[in-house]
Amino acid sequence: VLKLALIGFGFVAQGLAEILLHRSDELRANLGFSAQIVAVATRSRGSLYRPDGLVIDELFTAIHQGRLDQYPDVVGLERGWDTMRMIRESSADVVIEATPSNFQTGQPALDYCHAALDAGKHLVMANKGPLVVAYHDLVTHARQAGRQLRFEATVMAGTPTIHVGTSALAGCHISEARGILNGTTNYILTQMESGMSYAEALAQAQKLGYAEADPSADVDGWDAAAKALILAAALFNSQMTLADFSVKGISGITLDNVQSARTRGERWKLVARVTPAGGSVQPVCLPISDPLANVMRATNAVTYTTDHLGDVTLIGPGAGRSQTGFGLLADLLEIHRAG
Amino acid sequence: VLKLALIGFGFVAQGLAEILLHRSDELRANLGFSAQIVAVATRSRGSLYRPDGLVIDELFTAIHQGRLDQYPDVVGLERGWDTMRMIRESSADVVIEATPSNFQTGQPALDYCHAALDAGKHLVMANKGPLVVAYHDLVTHARQAGRQLRFEATVMAGTPTIHVGTSALAGCHISEARGILNGTTNYILTQMESGMSYAEALAQAQKLGYAEADPSADVDGWDAAAKALILAAALFNSQMTLADFSVKGISGITLDNVQSARTRGERWKLVARVTPAGGSVQPVCLPISDPLANVMRATNAVTYTTDHLGDVTLIGPGAGRSQTGFGLLADLLEIHRAG
Repeated sequence: VLKLALIGFGFVAQGLAEILLHRSDELRANLGFSAQIVAVATRSRGSLYRPDGLVIDELFTAIHQGRLDQYPDVVGLERGWDTMRMIRESSADVVIEATPSNFQTGQPALDYCHAALDAGKHLVMANKGPLVVAYHDLVTHARQAGRQLRFEATVMAGTPTIHVGTSALAGCHISEARGILNGTTNYILTQMESGMSYAEALAQAQKLGYAEADPSADVDGWDAAAKALILAAALFNSQMTLADFSVKGISGITLDNVQSARTRGERWKLVARVTPAGGSVQPVCLPISDPLANVMRATNAVTYTTDHLGDVTLIGPGAGRSQTGFGLLADLLEIHRAG
Repeated sequence: VLKLALIGFGFVAQGLAEILLHRSDELRANLGFSAQIVAVATRSRGSLYRPDGLVIDELFTAIHQGRLDQYPDVVGLERGWDTMRMIRESSADVVIEATPSNFQTGQPALDYCHAALDAGKHLVMANKGPLVVAYHDLVTHARQAGRQLRFEATVMAGTPTIHVGTSALAGCHISEARGILNGTTNYILTQMESGMSYAEALAQAQKLGYAEADPSADVDGWDAAAKALILAAALFNSQMTLADFSVKGISGITLDNVQSARTRGERWKLVARVTPAGGSVQPVCLPISDPLANVMRATNAVTYTTDHLGDVTLIGPGAGRSQTGFGLLADLLEIHRAG
């Protein structure tokens, strides 16, 4: 049984908990996999630790009431440990870092990550911040600690982008990855194609929960750039920082641009591109024959250009609760296989 | 060092040999993988065995002169062993079955496959025949023998179709796979869209080497059905035989059908579909918003419908020398990882 500590219990960690709640029998029977949540630490909604495991149903009941403190009293339950203590002193085998991203400092998550590896725990990331700031430090630390560092959920949610690029295509030389890595901007561009203005489409994306109240990380291209940076590091061992990326968002794209591309049989997409030499995120007018041109709404996609296979394209969800939760599960399954 | 016996030395086995010839340093440095061809057996072009390894350059020189007999005399070389003796008595760790497919009996390859497993060798298939006829027998035999049976190259060449469906998406429940699994028919339909008649497009596909002189396995849908059957067996442990498939080819599709679909914003594609309950191959008129509708020329694609992720689509080559050779390499890398 793999024992898990969840750092952060938002959307994504809840997506994983939900899968574990509903699919544990199937995962055990088909894959011999079994996991138990022993710790949950949040910044403002309390924290719980129980070496014999927390009941997922009760976690949901408590969090829906607003705070983990609502979790019932049971033998062996500890309340209120701070996150660092949870990482250092809990009996978890794996720390799942799912707190909000900070692309400038990676903090406080970056400290949590190093502490988890110091404590001899595997590390599974949903949070891009620490990887954007310190990918190579973390990889080196994990190697020295003899523990796994995995981050499938950070790029295209649970679509197996990292897995395909680094494992399924391991025998290929990948020279370039091009992708639509941000769902909000792709949704906006899709809506503009049916006549909506940029402002209307953005408002709708916000209403549907795709875009944040402050949509700048999405529409200015930085969310896509962060994902592209992680992908480049994983594929090419690239040392790029976000500052090395040429980044341009979609706010300059007019309804007129979109409509006139359409009459030419083309489509504007926010394309992230990385090679061993560098990376960019910018709106590109693609011919409709490009697989990326046909990726609509909040769906994401990546095309790997390879030596032996030519282009291989993977299309799948780029966001969502169960979709991103599955990315965490996929990493846990890899840890299970290796262990 | 993984020692390989190649059964059949056509297009696909040569594709693998070429990759091993040019990429062995890279594969060793990056993945710790190293392989050596110790045996090559063909039905009409001779056979060679050398426990210390055959020189790939010399194999190509010999086969380009028409027969493996042209291979130079070297210490330890054995010539003219028949295929069964090669499988049973050579020191190979892995037998690579790359002879032509027979969908009725699977023979003679099926006997080779069982002999390889009996001899304690891993089995890597490029040949669909034995899997179409006896998938479950072979899986059972491999399990009993404690050896691996792998077949990435049989579906969409080296595009990691099997790997994604069975490994990357292992934690998902896949309810359906829909795909364009035959390059020849997709090429023909693509050409018809630009005004070519079915007969002209078929002739061009033959000229380009996509279609055989007898194109019936392609155009009547049986090649796609064989691949779909293998995929269904791998994904669902399905017990279907080819006779259980509802199969219809593209020969009834007229230029008029193609053009009028186009005016409606739709495209005819030969779609293979499998679920745990059954399978079919038939021409389907897809809306242009379907990722499969935008797969053109000899490219192939598959869409997996899953619980946690919704639809995940993989697009890549469906044929080709290095493309299929890479499928064999990918299986060898998995054997290397497990070993």
